[in-house]
Amino acid sequence: MKDCVVGIDIGGTKLAAGLFDRQGNFVARGKLPTGSDCHPDQVIEAAVQITRSLLQETGIGREQVEGVGVGIAGHVNHEQGIVLTNSNLPEWDYHPLREILEKRLALPVILDNDANFAAWGEFRFGAGRGSRHMCYLTFSTGCGMGIVIDGKLYRGATGTAGEIGHTVVNPDGPLCSCGKRGCLMSYACGLALDRMARDSIGCSEETLLRSLCGDCPEHVRAETIAEAARQGDPVALRILTTAGHYFGIGLSTVVQVLNPDTIVIGGGLTHIGPMLLDPCIRALNDNIHPVLRDSARVVLSELWNDAGVMGAGAWIWERNP
Amino acid sequence: MKDCVVGIDIGGTKLAAGLFDRQGNFVARGKLPTGSDCHPDQVIEAAVQITRSLLQETGIGREQVEGVGVGIAGHVNHEQGIVLTNSNLPEWDYHPLREILEKRLALPVILDNDANFAAWGEFRFGAGRGSRHMCYLTFSTGCGMGIVIDGKLYRGATGTAGEIGHTVVNPDGPLCSCGKRGCLMSYACGLALDRMARDSIGCSEETLLRSLCGDCPEHVRAETIAEAARQGDPVALRILTTAGHYFGIGLSTVVQVLNPDTIVIGGGLTHIGPMLLDPCIRALNDNIHPVLRDSARVVLSELWNDAGVMGAGAWIWERNP
Repeated sequence: MKDCVVGIDIGGTKLAAGLFDRQGNFVARGKLPTGSDCHPDQVIEAAVQITRSLLQETGIGREQVEGVGVGIAGHVNHEQGIVLTNSNLPEWDYHPLREILEKRLALPVILDNDANFAAWGEFRFGAGRGSRHMCYLTFSTGCGMGIVIDGKLYRGATGTAGEIGHTVVNPDGPLCSCGKRGCLMSYACGLALDRMARDSIGCSEETLLRSLCGDCPEHVRAETIAEAARQGDPVALRILTTAGHYFGIGLSTVVQVLNPDTIVIGGGLTHIGPMLLDPCIRALNDNIHPVLRDSARVVLSELWNDAGVMGAGAWIWERNP
Repeated sequence: MKDCVVGIDIGGTKLAAGLFDRQGNFVARGKLPTGSDCHPDQVIEAAVQITRSLLQETGIGREQVEGVGVGIAGHVNHEQGIVLTNSNLPEWDYHPLREILEKRLALPVILDNDANFAAWGEFRFGAGRGSRHMCYLTFSTGCGMGIVIDGKLYRGATGTAGEIGHTVVNPDGPLCSCGKRGCLMSYACGLALDRMARDSIGCSEETLLRSLCGDCPEHVRAETIAEAARQGDPVALRILTTAGHYFGIGLSTVVQVLNPDTIVIGGGLTHIGPMLLDPCIRALNDNIHPVLRDSARVVLSELWNDAGVMGAGAWIWERNP
């Protein structure tokens, strides 16, 4: 009986995978230090290797595996199984990842954006269980969204719905990596935190950030900012407040446009806690029409790093219900 | 055989209605000078009166009418048939309009937000025919949106999805009627145009607007601004450019979050034409991620004022397919 699936989540720098059953119980899992910032050939090798190890290690045969779900950062056309764009490597543009993996693995493969699959993971097994219209947002190096509508993953016309990170929240805001000004991502993600910290150090504000990064502004990371803020540094606190505030404005857009019953927030930055999340929830409540207040349950992820792996695998069953 | 429906569209100042068949052919139509800015009792009388006239005038009996669809501005709970809030009249708050109309008309009644029903009208009979994921936006006194996903009207968890007018596009922007700053509505609707014109006249800028409104800034309307712009007035042109630009930013949010295949733009302001719409399309293209460029067909309404009436009536058949 085919009752297992493999889920693979290809992040920027690492690849996580798991083999699990219909109830969401992991039989095995693994990780490899390669990701979408690497050449596609390396990532394909890693995906093949990790799938083989999962099967070998458990003694589960290919015939018991329904398929392999693969989530990857960037823009993906799920139906065609193609990565449209991803990170900075042109080798990923229009890359037919699904077809190649299907041949190499001799198993059915599905491909989608990592935020979509993480949303599906939380919906099926995590903090979104029991919801009907759910949005999952990552507050992490970048900022992405996956949407579940009427209990189904919603991808939009060309598979790129949920691109909340590039919605404009301030036309006079900082330059975003996409070339526009004032995208949500230019305030509310790890890259934006780093930039704000570097700017503050650069303009010689009095701040603990300088000593904590050993006077090397380019070494500032979210953890440095969180540490300075915990020590009461006003510059670090202001940066976290700004990022949280804008993430909350992003949430207010989600609530007003999509009116979900549940919003699940995941991503590493959320571990910074109330210094970041309190301004976020305040901005959400301040920026929605009063009639929408409390319309959505806002909860933290339950699956964290497993969300993408579990959603990727579990979507196989949706394809073959 | 029940093969007709009545659609009623309750705008701010007038009520429009029509009796039509499954193919969208009007058998009769009518209008009354009352709307959601009036007391609910007046509106109910008008709705009853216009429905009776439509039936009398055509000789069509109640038994041939499947039901009456009613669209109204403001927040509506479709399932409960209740107006949540609307205009400035507290009498509308939590008003059980559907139940009252069903008793008075002795016909099944459905109730929804006017933008939702206008979206459905364009989807079934107008510029959205053949689409799958469609958004309808009004660029009018206010600014609203109706969403069709997978060929069905999407209302969200509490019936208030599509609240694009109150998404924040500039946190430092002008005060909106909802109390927040920099909502899309504070730039991109008729009320915002009037305010920008009054502000320009007030700060003694050299502008044709002053003479065109007979030196009474409170008499400035969108038509005054359009007329001044047609005569080359730079202040009026700047106002239209600003409004169009921000409406385009709103469209970019819709494209990035919902990734529809079709966007239909309706509402009276669109008749101002390229002076307003060119900056809008430019801002849309400038503010979406390149991978989403040309992902949505952007078209003008085909049904205009009939969209709300036709969508309201036609949704009766969705309820009884």
